[in-house]
Amino acid sequence: MGTLQLESAPEPKYWHLKTLLSQALDSEFSVGEILPNERDLAARFGVARATLRQALEQLELEGRLHRRRGVGTTVAPPRMGVAVGATAHAWPGAAGDAWQPVDCTRATPPAAVATDLDTDAEEPVHIVRRSRVSHGQPVAAELLYVPDASVPDLSAIDAPSGPARARAVLRELQRLELEGQERAVELGSARADDAKELDRLPGAPVLVVTTRYVAAGRTAALSVATYRADTCRLTFGDSSSEVEIHHGPEQRAS
Amino acid sequence: MGTLQLESAPEPKYWHLKTLLSQALDSEFSVGEILPNERDLAARFGVARATLRQALEQLELEGRLHRRRGVGTTVAPPRMGVAVGATAHAWPGAAGDAWQPVDCTRATPPAAVATDLDTDAEEPVHIVRRSRVSHGQPVAAELLYVPDASVPDLSAIDAPSGPARARAVLRELQRLELEGQERAVELGSARADDAKELDRLPGAPVLVVTTRYVAAGRTAALSVATYRADTCRLTFGDSSSEVEIHHGPEQRAS
Repeated sequence: MGTLQLESAPEPKYWHLKTLLSQALDSEFSVGEILPNERDLAARFGVARATLRQALEQLELEGRLHRRRGVGTTVAPPRMGVAVGATAHAWPGAAGDAWQPVDCTRATPPAAVATDLDTDAEEPVHIVRRSRVSHGQPVAAELLYVPDASVPDLSAIDAPSGPARARAVLRELQRLELEGQERAVELGSARADDAKELDRLPGAPVLVVTTRYVAAGRTAALSVATYRADTCRLTFGDSSSEVEIHHGPEQRAS
Repeated sequence: MGTLQLESAPEPKYWHLKTLLSQALDSEFSVGEILPNERDLAARFGVARATLRQALEQLELEGRLHRRRGVGTTVAPPRMGVAVGATAHAWPGAAGDAWQPVDCTRATPPAAVATDLDTDAEEPVHIVRRSRVSHGQPVAAELLYVPDASVPDLSAIDAPSGPARARAVLRELQRLELEGQERAVELGSARADDAKELDRLPGAPVLVVTTRYVAAGRTAALSVATYRADTCRLTFGDSSSEVEIHHGPEQRAS
């Protein structure tokens, strides 16, 4: 059946195969189930293994499959909705934000960050590392860049690094009054340390959420948050009007 | 030089190579310039071609390189900021939105869309196709799913398909009063028709922005917009407070 359908398709072969595989995932497999090996799958659909691999890669990009070394290819659960609006990415250190401080170092930031912060290229800044867990899974790793000018009274505090230092930086940051924030989302690849924290291989596709926090008329801090792209769907709340949307999952399912 | 540094690195080889290549891009190449071929690059950094290819793939994911068949690998310009907030993704058909109607068909939507629209799985809906151009480049292709219930008076209109039909659907949609919208961003792979419109290969990584428009207490329309992930950085305006951020690029550059 696979072969016949493939030959009449105007799209690339692997693309049509992807559609057939996707249908098979819906009808024959359940979440978490391990797929047959590549040789068996290629034989079933009458395609070369290279074609099969392309189709599997697409399904992985779309979040339908998880592929992990040593485990094999499994059917992925639907992506989690992870809120990345102003509540979850609140002014860092505010009560109830979604992030756990992990560490704090002092180093020269990447050139693009220095530009955004309007600091000199060689000027070291505080780099607070935070992590975010959702539904019991690590979903994001953040680097929060804070220039000295935003935390002028920090030097009086003892802890030189670690979570205590991170909390101290956040506490000082809270003295400034947030005036606004701008957010951007783009595709990236996981840096080695982020990948480790997120249980992914280095270089895995990730969604990078950059937030510029403005206080006292300038960029007071810059957050670069790396979200798992395989398991996460980033959600933004209502932004056109102040009306709440009351459709919950229970209503959508009815 | 490349080899020595690579051997002392704790990260995967291609990862460290990526950093070296990235530095070379900053210091030796200009935007649009074609990179040396893979053999020469591999020789220069003392790595296998497979390692080089992995590093090039990472740089492509990060938007630093463009790789196109027949052209080769070129240095990419910085990604464009493309606004995807409530202004650019306004209630479809509203004056001044960012989208051009291209076509309109009537078909059964994907299962996930039917669920979001709360329509029966087999119920056909109007599918308006629109496109978005920014800075002279096609940046996104949209499918807007509109159930019959949202445009009850549409049948009186003549044009059965094409841009005229699309405009008719949007006009009817405007009769409803928008109550709110919810947006989500996730990673996807370009469908064949979107890829063609966006000048990409099918399966290229894309950012999929899904917007649920709520009117009369239910989902009145669902927009699935596919943005180029290589050239676009999706920007969201201020959402925590109503304060405008006045930092323009001219200020950031100073």
